[in-house]
Amino acid sequence: MSQIQNDLLLRALRGETVERPPVWMMRQAGRYLPDYLKLKAKYDFFTRVQTPELATAITLQPIDQVGVDAAIIFCDILVIPQAMGLEVLMEELKGPSLPKIIATQKDINALTTEGAEESLKYVYDALALTKKELNGRVPLIGFAGAPWTILCYMVEGKGSKTWDKAKQFAYTQPALAHQLLQKITTITIQYLKLQAKAGADTVQVFDSWAGSLSPADFKVFAQPYLIQIADALKGIVPVILFPKGSWYALKELSESSAAGLGIDWCVSPQIARELTGNKITLQGNFDPAKLLAPIPAIKKAVKEMIDAFGVQNYIANLGHGITPNVPVDHAKAFVDAVKEYQAPSL
Amino acid sequence: MSQIQNDLLLRALRGETVERPPVWMMRQAGRYLPDYLKLKAKYDFFTRVQTPELATAITLQPIDQVGVDAAIIFCDILVIPQAMGLEVLMEELKGPSLPKIIATQKDINALTTEGAEESLKYVYDALALTKKELNGRVPLIGFAGAPWTILCYMVEGKGSKTWDKAKQFAYTQPALAHQLLQKITTITIQYLKLQAKAGADTVQVFDSWAGSLSPADFKVFAQPYLIQIADALKGIVPVILFPKGSWYALKELSESSAAGLGIDWCVSPQIARELTGNKITLQGNFDPAKLLAPIPAIKKAVKEMIDAFGVQNYIANLGHGITPNVPVDHAKAFVDAVKEYQAPSL
Repeated sequence: MSQIQNDLLLRALRGETVERPPVWMMRQAGRYLPDYLKLKAKYDFFTRVQTPELATAITLQPIDQVGVDAAIIFCDILVIPQAMGLEVLMEELKGPSLPKIIATQKDINALTTEGAEESLKYVYDALALTKKELNGRVPLIGFAGAPWTILCYMVEGKGSKTWDKAKQFAYTQPALAHQLLQKITTITIQYLKLQAKAGADTVQVFDSWAGSLSPADFKVFAQPYLIQIADALKGIVPVILFPKGSWYALKELSESSAAGLGIDWCVSPQIARELTGNKITLQGNFDPAKLLAPIPAIKKAVKEMIDAFGVQNYIANLGHGITPNVPVDHAKAFVDAVKEYQAPSL
Repeated sequence: MSQIQNDLLLRALRGETVERPPVWMMRQAGRYLPDYLKLKAKYDFFTRVQTPELATAITLQPIDQVGVDAAIIFCDILVIPQAMGLEVLMEELKGPSLPKIIATQKDINALTTEGAEESLKYVYDALALTKKELNGRVPLIGFAGAPWTILCYMVEGKGSKTWDKAKQFAYTQPALAHQLLQKITTITIQYLKLQAKAGADTVQVFDSWAGSLSPADFKVFAQPYLIQIADALKGIVPVILFPKGSWYALKELSESSAAGLGIDWCVSPQIARELTGNKITLQGNFDPAKLLAPIPAIKKAVKEMIDAFGVQNYIANLGHGITPNVPVDHAKAFVDAVKEYQAPSL
C-alpha cells in the first residue's frame, strides 16, 4: 500500500492533530465542472459510471482543478438497487427512476443480496484505477446510500418531495420494510468492504432522505441500519455517516462505530459540537447556496465556519452537494479559504 | 361579537386550562376531501379563492365532515405578491409560478405595499361570510406567508427544492433582500390586521421555506420579520408562527410576542418543549405521511404525541399540510383520536 502524501482527511478521521482541516465537497466531481460537462455530452450517465477510465477521469478532475484534499469516486447510490436486480433509469432533467417498484413480499424475495461482488465490479475497478492514478496524492473516498434512502427510491420509483409512499410502506408494513432494509444493509456492507479492498481509504454513507423521518421513526427505520453498517466496517475502513436533516440523531450516532458524522447547513457548528460532545470528527456544513455569493463573502463565511467547528476533529465540506450553477472559481475560493485558514490568535 | 361555543383553540393559545387539546389540520380544507374536488373541477384556483361564497363553502367542509375544532380560511399565501403587483399563475400539476420575478432595485420599487385593503377585499369578505356561517361553532383562523417564504417565490418565480436563487439574491444583495422583506412585512401586517377586523380569531404565519436557511441566516433574513409581525399584531389577535424546518429558532421565537409556535414532525415533542421551556403554546406535529398508516396505528401515534406534548398549552395538528392522498376516514381518525384522548392516570 502506497503512502498517502496529503493524509489530512484520514488523520482528521482518526482524531489526530492536523495543521489545518482537510477539505472536500460533496458532488465535487460533477456538473459545475466544464470538463465534466464535456464527458457528460459524450457518454450517458451509466456509461460514465460503469467505465472505469471515465469514472476515474471524472473523479480526478476536482483534485487537479479545485485542489480538494480527497477524491470521492464518481458513482451513484442507485447502483445498489441495480445490483439487487432492479432496473434504474437516469434521464436528463427527469432524475432517476425505477420502472419496477418494491411493494410486496414477493418483490422483496426477488431481490438478491449476492450482487455486490460481480455486478459492481466496475466500481472496484474504478477505485483501483483511481488509486493508481492518484499515486498517493490524496485519500480516496468510497460511498453508498444508506438503507432508508435506498428504500425510498425502491418503493417510490423516483424522487419525491415528501417520500409519502415510502413512509406509507414503512408505517403500514413495518415487517416488510425491515426485511427490505436488512437486505439493502447486507449487500451494502459487502459493497463497502469490497470498496475498501479495492482502495477506498474511507467510505461515506449518504442518508439523503433521513430528514423525512420523525425522530421516533428515524430510530426505527434508519438508525439501526446505519449503526449496523458502521459496526461491520469497524477496523476495516473509517466510516462517515451523513444523516441529512436528522440533527436529532447526532448524539446517538456520535456514540456509534462511525469515525465521522456529516452535518448539514441547518445545524449550527456549535450545536453540532454540543450534541456530539466532541466524541467524533464532524464534517460539513457550508450552505451550498452560499457558493453563489461573491468570493469575499464565501471566504468570510468559511472562516466563521472553521472558527465555530474548530480546526481539530473537523473536515471542511458543504452541508449538501455542490449545485451545477456554482462558478468553478467560487468552488475554488471555498477550498482555498480552508487552506488559508489561520486560527484566531489566543 | 358572537360568543364562540367551542373555544378550545383560543383558550389553548391564551394558555388557559383546557379539558382536552383542540385539533385542526393544516390544509384541512383541500384536496383529500371529495366535496372540495367537486368545486375544484368546476372553478379554477383563483376563482375558488376570490369568490367569498366558494371560499366559505370550502372553509366549512372540514368542520362538518371531519369535525376539527377550528376553521382556517381557504386562501393562498401568494395573494400577497398579487396584492403587491405581481402576476401569480396557479397551474394544475405545475404548482404556482410568477412570470415576472424580483431581481433589482427597480423591481422592488415597483411593488406596492398599499394593496392590502382594496385588492385583498375578497379575503376579508370570505372571512366575514365564514364567520357568519360558522355562527360561533368554532374559531376562525386567518393566515399569511412569512416574508422569507414570500421572497422565495418572488425571486425564484416558482417552487424549488433548494431555493438557491432566493438564497443567492439574499447572500449577494442583502440590502435589496432586506428592502423586499420589509415591504412584504409591511403589507402582511396590514393584511393580518384586516383579517382580524373581518373576523379572524387568530392568524398563522407560514414560513414554509424557513428550513432552507442555516441558523445564522434565519436570524438575518427570517426571524426579525416574523418577530416584527408578531409584535405588530400583539393585543389585536393571537399569532401562531410556523417556521417549518427551523427547529433551531424555537427557543428565540418562544420569547417573541407570538401566542403559539407550529412544530414540524422532525422535532420530537420533548425537544420542542425543552427548547421553548413551556413558555408558549405549541402546535403540531403529526407526520402527515402517518395519516396513510392503518387507523389503529394513527390512533396509537396520536395518543403518544399528546402524551409527549401534554394536554395544556398544546394544539394538536399535523407537522405540515395534509396530502391529497389521505383517505377522509383517516383524517377523521386523527381528529377523533385527539377528541377521545384520556390522559394517562397518575
